[in-house]
Amino acid sequence: MSRWEPDARGRLLRAALELFAEHGYESTTTAQIAERAGLTKTTLFRLFSDKREIVFQAQDELVALVKRGVDEADVGASPFELMVSGVRVLSGAHVDEHRRTGRILDPILAASPELNERAVFKRFALTVALEKALFNRLVDRWEAGALADLGIRAYYLGYDVWVASDGPAPLTSYVLEQVTHLQGAMQRVTNS
Amino acid sequence: MSRWEPDARGRLLRAALELFAEHGYESTTTAQIAERAGLTKTTLFRLFSDKREIVFQAQDELVALVKRGVDEADVGASPFELMVSGVRVLSGAHVDEHRRTGRILDPILAASPELNERAVFKRFALTVALEKALFNRLVDRWEAGALADLGIRAYYLGYDVWVASDGPAPLTSYVLEQVTHLQGAMQRVTNS
Repeated sequence: MSRWEPDARGRLLRAALELFAEHGYESTTTAQIAERAGLTKTTLFRLFSDKREIVFQAQDELVALVKRGVDEADVGASPFELMVSGVRVLSGAHVDEHRRTGRILDPILAASPELNERAVFKRFALTVALEKALFNRLVDRWEAGALADLGIRAYYLGYDVWVASDGPAPLTSYVLEQVTHLQGAMQRVTNS
Repeated sequence: MSRWEPDARGRLLRAALELFAEHGYESTTTAQIAERAGLTKTTLFRLFSDKREIVFQAQDELVALVKRGVDEADVGASPFELMVSGVRVLSGAHVDEHRRTGRILDPILAASPELNERAVFKRFALTVALEKALFNRLVDRWEAGALADLGIRAYYLGYDVWVASDGPAPLTSYVLEQVTHLQGAMQRVTNS
């Protein structure tokens, strides 16, 4: 078997999701995942520390995207526009295949405390990445932190609506709708 | 040895922190923690599923406190005041011994990815508890979610300042100062 396996990460993800859906996360072994993917365990462990990390393989890429969205925003962008630029680039990376993955993955996450805890850590990593990128531009830790919370909350709320829907609109539309809801809510509660 | 051990949970926490500080979290065993606490491993496992949970034993109590703070707020309280009531009761439970614990614990958490991930999950559990309690009063998911993020961020920021300081002021003072900073930041960024 060749050392180079085309799309080994994607094949392992699809195999893992199939097996987790069939037998549950706890009962599935890395050997089974590698076999289903047509790969060796050595290849699996060259790419991932354990079966849990197969599911969260996109985290580093998403962290880089949200950072890039802020970094690349116009010099004259307002603090709020900087945040929107971050979540827009983050959301823009999701294609329709990710919606299908989300539909399979979400019940698996909900059923496993271990995966659920890891999912919470991913959300925190995205929040910290957005906060750092915003702080780099704003130099106001409270604005950076509060905007990061709002942006990542919008991303997750929008993601849930997108995964549950069948419409042709991209994830970004749903996320920006949530940004508007949260912005309005914050205006109401902080000014009263 | 009696089945009933006075303050077994507190003794296990102090023993665990001592051992983690001396030998590191990874190298410390549950047997060593039980021995240092003058308890049996059976007692330890009756109270905690593993050594990690000893450190996070206060989570359920803190979740109940933040909920109670919202539930008990005046009928006429504004959304923002409801959130403040939640974090005020949450913060009010911390006595000076917790500041000393925090000073020992924080570097241990920072050095262990496993503990750090668990700490992030605790923060999320507090956020969800505050969000649910606020939603119960406000029936606006965006106000409840955005306020929960703001309140728990203030709690953690205030906690960090309190743990690093030697002043006589209680944690609540530091947290409320952070609430004010975050409220001002949100007013600036959402109205511009």
